Amino acid sequence: MEKPLKILHASLNNRVIVELRNGIEYQGTLDGYDVPHMNLILKNADEMINTEKTTKHTTVIVRGDNIIYISP
Amino acid sequence: MEKPLKILHASLNNRVIVELRNGIEYQGTLDGYDVPHMNLILKNADEMINTEKTTKHTTVIVRGDNIIYISP
Amino acid sequence: MEKPLKILHASLNNRVIVELRNGIEYQGTLDGYDVPHMNLILKNADEMINTEKTTKHTTVIVRGDNIIYISP
Amino acid sequence: MEKPLKILHASLNNRVIVELRNGIEYQGTLDGYDVPHMNLILKNADEMINTEKTTKHTTVIVRGDNIIYISP
Amino acid sequence: MEKPLKILHASLNNRVIVELRNGIEYQGTLDGYDVPHMNLILKNADEMINTEKTTKHTTVIVRGDNIIYISP
Amino acid sequence: MEKPLKILHASLNNRVIVELRNGIEYQGTLDGYDVPHMNLILKNADEMINTEKTTKHTTVIVRGDNIIYISP
Amino acid sequence: MEKPLKILHASLNNRVIVELRNGIEYQGTLDGYDVPHMNLILKNADEMINTEKTTKHTTVIVRGDNIIYISP
Repeated sequence: MEKPLKILHASLNNRVIVELRNGIEYQGTLDGYDVPHMNLILKNADEMINTEKTTKHTTVIVRGDNIIYISP
Repeated sequence: MEKPLKILHASLNNRVIVELRNGIEYQGTLDGYDVPHMNLILKNADEMINTEKTTKHTTVIVRGDNIIYISP
Repeated sequence: MEKPLKILHASLNNRVIVELRNGIEYQGTLDGYDVPHMNLILKNADEMINTEKTTKHTTVIVRGDNIIYISP
Repeated sequence: MEKPLKILHASLNNRVIVELRNGIEYQGTLDGYDVPHMNLILKNADEMINTEKTTKHTTVIVRGDNIIYISP
Repeated sequence: MEKPLKILHASLNNRVIVELRNGIEYQGTLDGYDVPHMNLILKNADEMINTEKTTKHTTVIVRGDNIIYISP
Repeated sequence: MEKPLKILHASLNNRVIVELRNGIEYQGTLDGYDVPHMNLILKNADEMINTEKTTKHTTVIVRGDNIIYISP
Repeated sequence: MEKPLKILHASLNNRVIVELRNGIEYQGTLDGYDVPHMNLILKNADEMINTEKTTKHTTVIVRGDNIIYISP
């Protein structure tokens, strides 16, 4: 397994920060992902716009092609 | 089946929120999807722009490549 | 056949609304489509910009990769 | 042959309107196309910006991935 | 060979106009191309912005995915 | 191994500058990458906007398709 | 080998100008490239914004999908 996937896998069940292209950020618990799209499942995810919480999602499927970075 | 698809599958016949790249949001009942495009069928879907309902669709096919997230 | 295609297929010869990424909307009779691009043929299609009719097309081939949603 | 290609093929040697993503429109005689890119050859094509003719091309190769619609 | 490539091939060693997505236009001698990317080699190419010459390139490799049209 | 990957590989465990399409820059230690996506793992990465440090990430997975350049 | 790659190959160890989609230009010595992505390695590369030098990179990996043209 290549390094980026290994790090992603090691982050399962941990809190991660996910930054999207449209400036939105999620802070949630990584519950799953797929390969090679890097679609993510986040649990208890706060949606942040300009560092302000706007919504809370119990579960959210984030499409990988909108992601800039994932920070475990 | 990988986790994101499993969550999507488990959401069939439930209300979901779908956020698109152009800022439009749909709230509707997930009636179907395809793989790997993640095109969705929503039933009784409200189209929201800036949290205001603009249109109601009995049925709508949403192309997957416009989707940012799906929140069951 | 997966659900989104089944719905599209069932919409043949019916009026559909097609919303494109550039804000243009078509209202026309679905005369055909292809897979997997989802290019569409619409007949007697009104082209709408901000809910105003601008042009009428007897026949129009709409490329699938510009489509946000199709509402039967 | 699927419907969109059949319509495109039937438009050979006829005048078509081609709308591009950047707002430019061509009105010309369809002289050829390729599959699956939908690159087009137009003859005696008027280039229109905001419904005004700007240039005339004896022959022009239009790349398919810029096309929004083709209206025969 | 499909029509668009045939026209491109017939334009070798002739002057062509190449319009790019960012509004830049090149006028140069077509010295080569590749398939399927449609990357081009232009010789003695004038780079035009708003119909004004800005730079002259002895040789330039233009990536195909930026091209809107090629006019022989 | 082709030259760009060779240089990337030789940069493992060294500080690199990574410029993204949205104007954000990372300065961090290259801890891994994958092929062909060029997703990167950076350690102790400073996130810079207009040459100002905004955040520090202990670990960050940067998706390759947002990258403009990597400077070892 | 097709013409664009032949020209790129012949430019190895020579100074080239590389124009990117975001308006940034690099002037550097072409040290390598890969196929089919056209990722480039430049050595002693000046980064220019509006014809002004902003940074100098000893080595830089430029992702091919941001490139508009390469001028040897």
